[in-house]
This record gives sequence, C-alpha cells and structure tokens, in this order.
Amino acid sequence: MNHDVFTLAGRQYQSRLLVGTGKYKDLGETQLAIEASGAEIVTVAVRRTNIGQHAGEPNLLDVISPDKYTILPNTAGCYNAEEAVRTCRLARELLDGHSLVKLEVLGDDKTLYPNVVETLKAADVLVKDGFQVMVYTSDDPIIAKQLEDMGCIAVMPLGSLIGSGLGIVNPYNLRIIMEQATVPIIVDAGVGTASDAAIAMELGCAGVLMNTAIAKAQHPILMASAMKKAVEAGRESFLAGRMPKKLYASASSPLEGKFF
Amino acid sequence: MNHDVFTLAGRQYQSRLLVGTGKYKDLGETQLAIEASGAEIVTVAVRRTNIGQHAGEPNLLDVISPDKYTILPNTAGCYNAEEAVRTCRLARELLDGHSLVKLEVLGDDKTLYPNVVETLKAADVLVKDGFQVMVYTSDDPIIAKQLEDMGCIAVMPLGSLIGSGLGIVNPYNLRIIMEQATVPIIVDAGVGTASDAAIAMELGCAGVLMNTAIAKAQHPILMASAMKKAVEAGRESFLAGRMPKKLYASASSPLEGKFF
Amino acid sequence: MNHDVFTLAGRQYQSRLLVGTGKYKDLGETQLAIEASGAEIVTVAVRRTNIGQHAGEPNLLDVISPDKYTILPNTAGCYNAEEAVRTCRLARELLDGHSLVKLEVLGDDKTLYPNVVETLKAADVLVKDGFQVMVYTSDDPIIAKQLEDMGCIAVMPLGSLIGSGLGIVNPYNLRIIMEQATVPIIVDAGVGTASDAAIAMELGCAGVLMNTAIAKAQHPILMASAMKKAVEAGRESFLAGRMPKKLYASASSPLEGKFF
Amino acid sequence: MNHDVFTLAGRQYQSRLLVGTGKYKDLGETQLAIEASGAEIVTVAVRRTNIGQHAGEPNLLDVISPDKYTILPNTAGCYNAEEAVRTCRLARELLDGHSLVKLEVLGDDKTLYPNVVETLKAADVLVKDGFQVMVYTSDDPIIAKQLEDMGCIAVMPLGSLIGSGLGIVNPYNLRIIMEQATVPIIVDAGVGTASDAAIAMELGCAGVLMNTAIAKAQHPILMASAMKKAVEAGRESFLAGRMPKKLYASASSPLEGKFF
Repeated sequence: MNHDVFTLAGRQYQSRLLVGTGKYKDLGETQLAIEASGAEIVTVAVRRTNIGQHAGEPNLLDVISPDKYTILPNTAGCYNAEEAVRTCRLARELLDGHSLVKLEVLGDDKTLYPNVVETLKAADVLVKDGFQVMVYTSDDPIIAKQLEDMGCIAVMPLGSLIGSGLGIVNPYNLRIIMEQATVPIIVDAGVGTASDAAIAMELGCAGVLMNTAIAKAQHPILMASAMKKAVEAGRESFLAGRMPKKLYASASSPLEGKFF
Repeated sequence: MNHDVFTLAGRQYQSRLLVGTGKYKDLGETQLAIEASGAEIVTVAVRRTNIGQHAGEPNLLDVISPDKYTILPNTAGCYNAEEAVRTCRLARELLDGHSLVKLEVLGDDKTLYPNVVETLKAADVLVKDGFQVMVYTSDDPIIAKQLEDMGCIAVMPLGSLIGSGLGIVNPYNLRIIMEQATVPIIVDAGVGTASDAAIAMELGCAGVLMNTAIAKAQHPILMASAMKKAVEAGRESFLAGRMPKKLYASASSPLEGKFF
Repeated sequence: MNHDVFTLAGRQYQSRLLVGTGKYKDLGETQLAIEASGAEIVTVAVRRTNIGQHAGEPNLLDVISPDKYTILPNTAGCYNAEEAVRTCRLARELLDGHSLVKLEVLGDDKTLYPNVVETLKAADVLVKDGFQVMVYTSDDPIIAKQLEDMGCIAVMPLGSLIGSGLGIVNPYNLRIIMEQATVPIIVDAGVGTASDAAIAMELGCAGVLMNTAIAKAQHPILMASAMKKAVEAGRESFLAGRMPKKLYASASSPLEGKFF
Repeated sequence: MNHDVFTLAGRQYQSRLLVGTGKYKDLGETQLAIEASGAEIVTVAVRRTNIGQHAGEPNLLDVISPDKYTILPNTAGCYNAEEAVRTCRLARELLDGHSLVKLEVLGDDKTLYPNVVETLKAADVLVKDGFQVMVYTSDDPIIAKQLEDMGCIAVMPLGSLIGSGLGIVNPYNLRIIMEQATVPIIVDAGVGTASDAAIAMELGCAGVLMNTAIAKAQHPILMASAMKKAVEAGRESFLAGRMPKKLYASASSPLEGKFF
C-alpha cells in the first residue's frame, strides 16, 4: 500500500479522509478529532468560521494550521452562484492567494440538497477565474461529468443528504460517476458510521469527506479514529478485489438479478 | 481504546478478528495473510488440515505456531453430532489437552447451513466433557440462547451462508442475539468485504471470524489488512456511538418506520 | 391465470392469501377485513378465540363460517411441544374431527421467534397422530426440509418476526427453502405492507399468511383489499418472469456481485 | 376506494398506471399488454413510433385509439432542449392540437439519465408555448420543485435508470419530492417487477409509468396484469396506513436509526 497515494492539485496525500470543522463542542475537540482522523485536508466554512475575517476573535487556523493541513475553504451557507463566487474570492484573499476551494451551492436550508444549476454556473466562473475547484454535487452522473468537463479538479457527489447519516443510498449512480470520471471522485455528505465510509471506498471513490458523522457521534474523537480506519479498510478492500457474492458456496449459485 | 480488550476463555486479546486457514494458494500465503490480519486466534479444520495426524507431511502448526497464536480447532466437514464430538476429541489429543474448540455441525454440503439440532446435541456432550466450546450456529436467537445456557463460552451466528459473501443479511436477529447474551457473540461466516466486517462490529458483536473473504479475494494479503482495519473501525464506531439517521438534517425529520 | 390454483390438503383455492383473526377492534371488523382480503383459509388461535369451548359466549365461527372458509386452527401461545399437541387435539374435537392445523411453537413471549426444536417434536407427534400439519418455522432451510420430510403438508417460514412489520428480511434463505421443497412454502409473519406480500410471492412462495399487517393498519379493511391485490400481483409477476436487473439499460452492464 | 380518482389536466382517471408502447414484439402484443394493464394514459415516443408522420405505414393509433386512451406523446430520443421542443410541436400537429406532452431530455445514450439543465430549458419554452407538460426528471428534489414552479402539471422522477429494473433506489429523495409537491408526482423509470410498483405507490406518489418491465418480462401480458394489481395494491396500502416497523412485537422495541 506504500504507493497508493492520493494526488490532488499536484500534491500527494497519504490520507483519503477529508474532514470538516463544524458542529464540534469547541476548538479543542475540533483539533483532537481532526488529529485522530488522520486527515490532511480540512474544509472550513468561510461564512461561519473565523479564518481571519474577524480580527481579535479565535481563529481556526491557530488550531488547524495551514502549515500542517491543506485548508480547503468551502462555500457552505451559499444558495446561489453569486454568493458562492464571492465567498471563494474572500477566502482567496484571507488565505493569501490560495486557490483551492470547495464549492457548494445548496438548494434550500431545509434539505441542504445541492442546487446543481447554480453549482454549474459558479463552477464555470471560478474555474475561469483561476480557482482549483473541488465541487460538491448530487449523485447525478450527467452533472458530475459536466463539472469535470468544465475543469473542476475533483467532483464530490453526496452519499445522502448533509447531516442525514443515511450512508450511500444510491451506489449505482456513484459507480456510473466513477466509471466515466478522470478526476478524483470524493463522496461528500451522508456518511453516518464507519461502515458507510468503507462502502464508499469499496465502490472505488478516491476519498470521503465528512463532518457530522464525527462531530455528532457521542464520542467524536473515537469516531474520528474509526473513520480513519474505515476509509483505509475500504480502500484496501477495493484494491484487494473482493470475492464474488453467491447464493451459497457451491459453484453453481450465482446471483443473477432475477430474485434479488 | 487501550482498555477495550476482548476476553475469551480467560485470556485477553487485542484483536477481534478471528481467521481461518483454508482455501489459500499455499502455506506461505496462509502465513502472510494471517500476519496481515493481526488475528491472534486462528481456526483450523481438523478434518482437512494436518496438525500432526499425518506425520511426515507439512504441518500447519509449523507455520502458524501455537506459541504465537491461539489455535482454535474446528469441526468443519462434520454433519452430525457424533462426528463433531469425535473430531473435537481428536483435536484435544493432537494439541496436548487443549480444550478450546469451535464446534460446527452443518446441515448439508450444498448450502453449508448449520444443523442446529445436531449442534445442540454436540454442544451438550462437549461442554459436559470439559471442552470450552465456541459454537457456530444460525442467526436463530432461541438456539443462540440455548447454546449459551448450555455452557458454550462464545456463540457464533452466521452473517450469511459460508462462502456466500452476502454480508450481514439479518441484522435484526443479530441485535436480538446480542441484547440477550452474556457471552461473546462473534459473527462467523458471510462476510464478503471490509464494510461487512465493520457492519458486524457496529451491531455490537464481540468479534468476527472469516476465511473465504480473505483467502478468495484477488489479493488475500491486502484484504487481510483491510479486514484488520475494518474490524477495528467497526468496533470503535460502535463504542463511539453513531449519529442518528434522519430524512434530512433539520431536527424535525426522524425516520419513523412508516415509509422506510 | 385461470388455471393457477393453489392446492392444499387435496382442496383447491383461488386465493393465496391466508389471514388471521386476532387484533381486530371487534368481530364485525374481523369479518369485513377477511371478506375484503379474499382469503379462503382463515387461521384461528384456539387458545385465544372462542370456537365453541365457551358456550354462551360470542363464537368466531358464527362470523367466519366453516361452510365458507377453511378454518385453520393454530397453536399461538404455545411454548412447547406438549402444549401445542394438546391444543391441536382440542381443536380437532371442537371442529368435529377436522385434521388440518397450523402448528406454531414459540421460543419466548418477547420476540415470538419460533422454537424449532419443540416444533420438530410436536410436528412428529401430530403427523403420526393423523393431523395434516402446516408448520410455522424460522427461515432455517435445514429445519424446513426436516419438517417436510417428516410429513408436514406445508412449511411456513417467517419473513421476519411476528408483529414486526419488517417484511422479507432474508430472501436468500427463503429462495433456498423453495428450491428444495416439494410441499407448498407459505411465508408466515413479518409482512408489514402490500409490497412485502408482493415480494414474498415474487420469490416463488405458494402463499402468504398475515394478521397484524391488516389488523393494525389504520384502515384494516382497505389494507385487506391491498393485500389481496398485492398477493395476486406478486404471483402473476413471478409467473410472468421479470426482466433482469442491470446497472443501466445498455446490454453490457450486468450486475455481477462485485459492487452491489 | 370509489372516490380515489387521479386527476390530471382536468380529467379524471381510475388507473394510476401509465404505460409505454416500446420494445414489444409486435403491435398485437402491445395492444393486449396495454389492455391487461388497465392503463388509461399511454405514452408514445414520437421520434420512434408512427402516429401519422409516415402515411401508409402501420399507425400505432389504429391499435391504441385516442378515443379510448389519453395519448401522451413523449420526447424519448431527444438529448437537448431544442430537439425536445421541436418534437413536442410535431406531436401537437399530428394530434390535432393536443397539448399534453411528456417531456424527457436525456444526458447520454448509454445511461439514459436525464439532463436536468436541458429539461429545465425545454420545460420553460413548452409551458410558455401553451403545452401541458408532464416532465421526466431525476430524483433531485430541487429540480423537481423548479419544474413544478415553472408550471409543469406533473413531475415524473425516476425510481432508477430507464431499462435498469433496479426499482426504487432512493426512496428518501422521492419522499422529499412528494412532501413539497402540489402537482402529481409520478414515478417514471426503474420499475422492474410488481413489488417495485407497489413500493412506489406506498411512498405516496400519484402514479407510476413503466414500459420495459412489462414489455421485457417473459410474459408481457401477464406482467401487465401484475402491474395493474401492484399499483392498486400500493395505492390502497398507502391510503390504509401501514403498521409501524418494530424490532419485535413487544411495544418497547422501536427502530430508532442507531443500528439499522
């Protein structure tokens, strides 16, 4: 497994688990959970988190240092392309020209489902403006391909809705997205427990991003450790090539899509 | 997690993954896969594997040393109580009085489903004969409880059929078995991929035993490593306490068993 | 479909839906729901329902007439073979020598899971005593086959626990039971909604028995009608032979048990 | 159930099953299957089926008469808004000003997944041009709402991909779509077998549209009958209000989203 590195924006990572920073009890818990997760890429909601906008207040970057982590500013809380573009530009300023961003444009504040039309618009503007865009989207394979064709450097379909913990609801769409992709596909949102993260990786995705599943576990730091191992387990399992499923062990019992 | 040890027959283990020794290409691969799995308890089919019965032939125990591993002789290939009891007694002789055994009595050689009636009979004889019986069984909660009441030291229900790779088909029965058990419940059979092992552990079982999922992966040694991590991930996830599932993130959307 | 009759104990039936009589608001609702279900075989818990034991009290058979319905006395509430055998003999007396019974022996009153060992014992006694035994059991294929071999005229595995409404949790076991059976296999228990009944029939079973799903719906009579149609739909769908599942419509996308 | 009519474009229907006309062996089989399905609304691919464009060739409308059925011209085979709009206008001419259409704009000919961006564009043009637009789309709740807000008279999300037979893969998205809709939601595509149709209706949708599941069954006419009953069963089950799911029958065992 030494050579199974994850390359993003020209940089190599050992970890395929990306984590958020929201919903923790305090900055101390945030820091410990992120350390336990082994994540090297940490996403930050620019509109909700102080990364320098508010001088004199606690700054997340004091705890999650850009020297140690790749900081991935995201546009959580944006409901149209314009807000999202503006937020990315603010992040670039605050982070001294750092061009890597995670774009998310949501459809409403009840379901938090992505607005794919506004996402396409924002992605187009941002790519042309020189951003390296990782883009959160639905599991729509046509939209995923358009976002890739537009120049996004990673496409991040949901497993299920943000904060739902329902896991990978539609593995079929994710497989189709992966089959046709040439950029990394990172499952973002929906993971509720460790096995969900393993399932995502076993489908062949390049990584998993999560926040609530860790922050809202009863013991976030232990769950962060679980997720680290689950992502590694799923990745190794994918590379190892699982045994085929059968109705029973005898050679003559394939599952042929007629009953199950 | 330092203190989360798994105690079986008075001995403490770090690993909750138990592995078999069948179906590998050769003894070398067996050894490397078992090492990669981190397993400390290794089960051996006495009727199929030379552990001393056949002097002058390759002996598995030269590779999987009883000094390093807890050897768990099993009765694979037995289809009635009498054969199973006889096999356990042979194992005890070969292993110098070692009384820990894994009892399995199967119903037929096509499905490899357990014969629970013969299993109950054999367990009764073996417990009275001083064996420490770990017992493979179906996911029938009534039988599982009877086996425990009879004095078995661990009950090992299937996730799905031996060699099927279908994973944990009936998590409800497994939960019921766990809720009422006071001995370790170890899911034995059915795991096909790493996420299956994590799911078993997240249900709260004490450990997972597998063989085909590792031996019949395209790359067994890498899959053994995946399984090690998956079992640890699932265990930590169980202990960490997952977030609840919701239809969407808003507080007012529980899943209430009416639609899903 | 005219010729797709269901034959049981030498008698032909148009309906493959068997229903219970418990848990209704009153006898009037019981009667209307059973009529709406189209059921021709109605099972009655002898230990809970007056079918003549208590002279002067309302008698179910006044409402559900043996002239119109095949009355199937059952042993609900029995937790060992002896009680079950005694209950069947009482039923035979009350019903003038009627020898058709539904045997059920449960493991405990919390889960209502069958006790298969006591079930085997009771079935053996009853068959030898001249009863025509339809037998409720778990989804254990070995036990199912033993019950058939013993002379039971129909084997009735659970879809999931009595009163759980969880549907067909383990379709694999049910398929194995059906593949090896020569007597009718009737799914008994677990159905919660109409699609569950259709799924049972699509697996190839001969019929479905239910009670709670109808009696505890918000509108039992309408649900009875739904179940009638669902059982017919599932049966016709099974006979019609469904299209195969594919990842997508293109011919080259079978589902091959590696990812899903 | 007498009063449970389905109203679409001001007209009332008894049947909630809508069917296509493609993939049958010949027109005779098409006719018999549609009759057996009880469908009152029949969709026709204008670009693939002769409904008058080709004088002197067999005309589907001779078999599926507009006097008896509501003919629903669809834009199958269109991959952008312009083609779809042109096809709808051709259909309106051929059908003497008939303004009811089913819009579908697909993303590619491999997956047949909808192109939601082009679908939005086409819907906008068609609604403004006076069409009564029923619109095929993905299960994206944001897009579904936009299509409704735009003036489409029915929104038709997929259960799974056209021709896949995978059933209702993401019931959660469908529930969200239904919760927020004021126009009929009709599940279109993905149904493979009768229980899939029942599941769709149990989720609360107003109807189901299918083609391959009937036409590509081994016995299409029998499957059409199965689907008729399944849709009715699912509808009645939804209206009847199913019993809640429990781990087991005892009152104290809700399923609370922590394990399952």
